[in-house]
Amino acid sequence: MASDIGLIGLAVMGQNLVLNMADHGYTVTVYNRTTETMTEFIEGPARDTTVLGSETIEALVDSLERPRRVMLMVKAGAAVDAVIESLVPLLDEGDIIIDGGNSEFTDTIRRARELEDRGLRFIGTGVSGGEEGARNGPSIMPGGTEAAWPFVKDIFQDIAAKVADGTPCCDWVGSDGAGHYVKMVHNGIEYGDMQVIAEAYALMKASGMTHEEMAEAFHRWGEGVLDSFLVDITADILAFRDDDGEVVLEQILDAAGQKGTGKWTAINSLQLGQPVTLVAEAVYARIVSALKDQRVEAAPLLEGPSQSIDGVSLADIESAMYCSKIVSYAQGFLLLSAAAAEYDWNLDYGRIASLWREGCIIRAAFLDDITAAFDRDRDLTSLLIDGFFSSAIAEHQEGWRRVIQTAVANGIPVPAYSSALAFYDAYRSERLPANMIQAQRDYFGAHTYERIDRPRGEHFHTNWTGTGGSTTAGSYDA
Amino acid sequence: MASDIGLIGLAVMGQNLVLNMADHGYTVTVYNRTTETMTEFIEGPARDTTVLGSETIEALVDSLERPRRVMLMVKAGAAVDAVIESLVPLLDEGDIIIDGGNSEFTDTIRRARELEDRGLRFIGTGVSGGEEGARNGPSIMPGGTEAAWPFVKDIFQDIAAKVADGTPCCDWVGSDGAGHYVKMVHNGIEYGDMQVIAEAYALMKASGMTHEEMAEAFHRWGEGVLDSFLVDITADILAFRDDDGEVVLEQILDAAGQKGTGKWTAINSLQLGQPVTLVAEAVYARIVSALKDQRVEAAPLLEGPSQSIDGVSLADIESAMYCSKIVSYAQGFLLLSAAAAEYDWNLDYGRIASLWREGCIIRAAFLDDITAAFDRDRDLTSLLIDGFFSSAIAEHQEGWRRVIQTAVANGIPVPAYSSALAFYDAYRSERLPANMIQAQRDYFGAHTYERIDRPRGEHFHTNWTGTGGSTTAGSYDA
Repeated sequence: MASDIGLIGLAVMGQNLVLNMADHGYTVTVYNRTTETMTEFIEGPARDTTVLGSETIEALVDSLERPRRVMLMVKAGAAVDAVIESLVPLLDEGDIIIDGGNSEFTDTIRRARELEDRGLRFIGTGVSGGEEGARNGPSIMPGGTEAAWPFVKDIFQDIAAKVADGTPCCDWVGSDGAGHYVKMVHNGIEYGDMQVIAEAYALMKASGMTHEEMAEAFHRWGEGVLDSFLVDITADILAFRDDDGEVVLEQILDAAGQKGTGKWTAINSLQLGQPVTLVAEAVYARIVSALKDQRVEAAPLLEGPSQSIDGVSLADIESAMYCSKIVSYAQGFLLLSAAAAEYDWNLDYGRIASLWREGCIIRAAFLDDITAAFDRDRDLTSLLIDGFFSSAIAEHQEGWRRVIQTAVANGIPVPAYSSALAFYDAYRSERLPANMIQAQRDYFGAHTYERIDRPRGEHFHTNWTGTGGSTTAGSYDA
Repeated sequence: MASDIGLIGLAVMGQNLVLNMADHGYTVTVYNRTTETMTEFIEGPARDTTVLGSETIEALVDSLERPRRVMLMVKAGAAVDAVIESLVPLLDEGDIIIDGGNSEFTDTIRRARELEDRGLRFIGTGVSGGEEGARNGPSIMPGGTEAAWPFVKDIFQDIAAKVADGTPCCDWVGSDGAGHYVKMVHNGIEYGDMQVIAEAYALMKASGMTHEEMAEAFHRWGEGVLDSFLVDITADILAFRDDDGEVVLEQILDAAGQKGTGKWTAINSLQLGQPVTLVAEAVYARIVSALKDQRVEAAPLLEGPSQSIDGVSLADIESAMYCSKIVSYAQGFLLLSAAAAEYDWNLDYGRIASLWREGCIIRAAFLDDITAAFDRDRDLTSLLIDGFFSSAIAEHQEGWRRVIQTAVANGIPVPAYSSALAFYDAYRSERLPANMIQAQRDYFGAHTYERIDRPRGEHFHTNWTGTGGSTTAGSYDA
């Protein structure tokens, strides 16, 4: 009897996805470059399941029902191309290759086009939720050749996380690289959420709270507007002590690592000209944390307030976190909207929010509010102007502003909170001081400017000094 | 008699460089794709000079002394490659091609290698100062084939801007793309300087100051620690009225344009993992300004303080500008240092600061202080820990913090000031809350962490929930 799907790459995510599929009644043939890993998996975790091991890619392909479905869970980059190249000669027209790794969406766009040109179907899918999610229900964000979707929909939706009403956190995102793009933005937002929490922890610690008090605060916040996986695990982390009774958190080096998806989000936002400032500041905050040696050298040399706070309002911190988070998601959806236009994707923003409702790292009750906002207005320009979110910020912004003022006065860095606020205050400004920037550019580079009393697209130049020429800048950019 | 140098591309920058060279006694042969532009130049601005027109590239090449020097002032991108391709067959071993446009440094690295492989010498050079600088003395930042430098040094240094003691603002920067890279960072810093000024203008305007008062403040600041071209022209701009007596600045649309170099700097800083937050926020601020329609839509819908200030301390604003600027340059030089390591350039940071002392847009007295800091310690980790700059921030930070608090309370966006302060406070923190981020990453993704009581490079994993496996994350990134 033929298998339902083949899976190549048996690292922990691959193994867990296979076991998840087997739980849902699918037969899976698996292959791994190192055969030993495969046999250990078959004889270990996959014992007494319908999972079949294969020592060659050829045998894996031969074992599959048609159209064949082959999922890759291999390291993003050259390895994906290499496996695809070895697969293609073995497949027939209409067969489906699925890349479930963390590929760059630009690679996925290229692969989808190349494989479609060769008569195959290609899906690049984000899979979020880590080890645990892969095993018990991840958030799955597939994009690529839409004609392939009906052939993988059942498997993917069966293994995906479910919202309380049973809706799976998996639905078709869009063509070519759309799935991996949405996963990238998810990860960027995750960077932001984590920085927002880290700043709260810094403020609480600076105010002298004990770890029990901090854990309790996060536990309580996890039952309010901040209800989310990351807030929940923060409470766990704050309370976690080792066998000697020491708080493990305080033993951990304050140098954050990163694997690139937050950085990709920030870079892409700059390329598309979208203001995803909170994610960018979160990426930079990790970068500064990693400059540990420089900080240790600088700390005794640089003057400033003592970085301790004389009491802090937990309600204000909650407000700062909530408002910052609203801004960050609003920025993320501005980016998705720009990407849809740039890459020609038909994205359903409310549905994307619902894909993140369970299973993934940023899962949160809050995402229902986002879906609801896009249900109210499918073409909403920005989440900020939706009535629910504008009221939420109206209600919480005083605390947000107080927290930043306290942090600024006392020397505690809150780059995410303050960047989010600067964006909020800029976004609600009908008039910004950018006219000065345009005047300067026209002054030194004859770059011209538009006027508030003239239609857009008409360009003016002022001879500011009386000595410059009337020639305006052409292709050369000073 | 053979010409000293050939120049291809007679837009305004090209024309002005040629006239500048002619002023200094060099004979220049010029070519332009549209012959009419060339003849108009020869019969117009270049009349009664030694400049020679050429209707073909072949004739231009034939007219030159050996080794031939051919400078390109054409639009960055494909046009540069096209002109190079048409030039190469006409040149002999050891001849020199100079790209004086705003090319991306990665293109310059590629071109330098390709042309060196073909026996030619290539220089990619930043030229800053706009139209006026090109004519009367720009800042010139050449990099590429070092063996070419002795053949262009005299011309470049003769036409460059000079510091008061006669030192030219032109010296060799480094191999392949180093010159264009340094120009890119210059432009990024320029974005930051302009945003820092724009925020001051916004605060002053919100406090109800007249344009005369604002102009006077900038005029006074231009004689203090902020002494710079951009502060000077800001005073001019604030005072400039049209024939009807209206302030032109206030007629200018507040939607800032950009041509990419600030964006490239921010993107490169993310790629190299360097915290160039102020430039990034300046780029994002231009992006938000350009979302004019969205802002007009959002303004009446989003609540917040009235964006007017009840009086403001000009001394505090000066402090905020000065401290932010110090942070921005410190960040820029961190980036240069990382680039030197990444791209294998031997950069002389003090000399680079001195190249910007005159001629270019960011020219400022302040750059002498940077050169002096690197003279004191050629391997200075960061400008912030140099005694001069740490004292300057120590002296001015209270005003800086007060300005941000006022802006935050009154709803005026100051993304550059607050991002710079967050960086400063993070950089002087021996301990940051990034241990929380590492704990979270280990909790949900088994990414492991390092410990403060163990040497770097040892990685630990905690089984936070008691249910996860002991397997740590491999290549797969959740």
